[in-house]
Amino acid sequence: MTNHKYSLTGYHKEENEELWLWDDLPELDMEIGYKVGSLLHYEHSPFQEISIVETKAFGRMLVLDGTPQVTAKDGFIYNEMITHIAMAAHPKPQKVAMIGGGDCGPAREALKYESVQQIDVVEIDPRVIEVCRTWMTKETGQEREGLIRTVLKDGYKWIQEQKNMYDVLLVDRSDPYGPAVSLYKPQFYQYVYDSLTDDGIAVFQSGSPYYSGILKKTSSSLRKLFPIVHTYICSIPSFPGGIWSFTIASKKWDPLEADLNGLQWQDAKYINPEIFQASFVLPQYIKSALEEK
Amino acid sequence: MTNHKYSLTGYHKEENEELWLWDDLPELDMEIGYKVGSLLHYEHSPFQEISIVETKAFGRMLVLDGTPQVTAKDGFIYNEMITHIAMAAHPKPQKVAMIGGGDCGPAREALKYESVQQIDVVEIDPRVIEVCRTWMTKETGQEREGLIRTVLKDGYKWIQEQKNMYDVLLVDRSDPYGPAVSLYKPQFYQYVYDSLTDDGIAVFQSGSPYYSGILKKTSSSLRKLFPIVHTYICSIPSFPGGIWSFTIASKKWDPLEADLNGLQWQDAKYINPEIFQASFVLPQYIKSALEEK
Repeated sequence: MTNHKYSLTGYHKEENEELWLWDDLPELDMEIGYKVGSLLHYEHSPFQEISIVETKAFGRMLVLDGTPQVTAKDGFIYNEMITHIAMAAHPKPQKVAMIGGGDCGPAREALKYESVQQIDVVEIDPRVIEVCRTWMTKETGQEREGLIRTVLKDGYKWIQEQKNMYDVLLVDRSDPYGPAVSLYKPQFYQYVYDSLTDDGIAVFQSGSPYYSGILKKTSSSLRKLFPIVHTYICSIPSFPGGIWSFTIASKKWDPLEADLNGLQWQDAKYINPEIFQASFVLPQYIKSALEEK
Repeated sequence: MTNHKYSLTGYHKEENEELWLWDDLPELDMEIGYKVGSLLHYEHSPFQEISIVETKAFGRMLVLDGTPQVTAKDGFIYNEMITHIAMAAHPKPQKVAMIGGGDCGPAREALKYESVQQIDVVEIDPRVIEVCRTWMTKETGQEREGLIRTVLKDGYKWIQEQKNMYDVLLVDRSDPYGPAVSLYKPQFYQYVYDSLTDDGIAVFQSGSPYYSGILKKTSSSLRKLFPIVHTYICSIPSFPGGIWSFTIASKKWDPLEADLNGLQWQDAKYINPEIFQASFVLPQYIKSALEEK
């Protein structure tokens, strides 16, 4: 028998004395299974099922409602790519916020920019923050980490109270199910616009450009509001299909004209100045999908 | 009950009146399952298990020993990316060969270059060619398709007989198990070198740069022989982890200096001149792995 103390539901199954995590993708008629070396944490919070599993392919994974969110081995890709493009595109980001991202990975990346004075991490589920602090990204106790403030609120309600406030806002939303669903509403994009300073920049996790229509919807919603909108992509092995998109929307600074001497990539494992630029180059099928009426 | 006439082995399993294909990745402790809408073909050839399955995520898939090789929906990515970089890098490719690629997808891409006079497709398993012709890529009967010649031989034996023969050689090898294992031997790279003309170019499928060490081994073997060796990458959703590598080795023409006016991307769905260049830009973790001693 596998050795853990939890009473498990759907996504974690014991078979032949092994424990497996099953990421169900019903819209694709696919299932991705990970053999769980050990189940480090398991709970149902008021918002979702939270688990931490140890896997061979990705090391430790934070899993919400059966979907891997961030992993020890490839989490650097998502964290670097959601953060650095906007941070380097803005010449002097001082006030930064992120909606979601309770694991604080993107916040740690943003801290690398010396101009930063405040980072607000807005997370609806306090248990995600606590579980991640225990199992994923321990606080290092460094002085500048004091600039990271956690705000335990529903991001959709919180953003409506922010006006002309942030230089950079990262929308680290999970898939449009469960607690994140309001972060895909059309009004949300207007609230984000209003929360930014006059030269502010926002970045949105905008889904798989191969499997989903989220990218196109995000991009066209943002084009109605912002003068500068671009799609950029990266490859995240633990995400279904690998290829993943972000949408960046800016009031003044065009990331394609950024001074890349400011990019803080010294200890990065994915981004570098060439990747910064190459990530805006889209395969023809993605360009065509974005251009379709 | 699912409706088919075959007696199935390991990779295809019937559960709860559904048929599923299971791609086992034991080195990662992972399994990827595809619900099979219909099983169009199933056989054991003298070399491998060959099946054609209809799936929701990828449409029709050619599956060899349980591993999806090429799919109707995203096969264009692999076919374009293994072919066009070398074809555009060479100013006048006339004689072209490919080892593997019995589905003839890359051969169709190579045909788009007007200078081409002959395309030899070397495939060990005649059943792969026949099954693909029936289910995957039907011949169109166009005149230029007559330039494609199939050679039913073991690629490793065949290449030893070719000297100073080909302008472009594509090594569309499957994973280093079963019939493809000899295509990863150190001597194989020397045979490839010898098979090329004085300004010839070869491209090798070189595995997942995230999961496997094949890329590094391929690259260092080729650097001992060729003056110009580069890694390039693309994102293939049906391959584990998505991100995938090719290694290009050239005797004279550097793809980074290619005249991209020659790139035949008019009806391409992945490649375009910007992607051609961006595909050589590597994430920092891949660059570091390639530079390690």
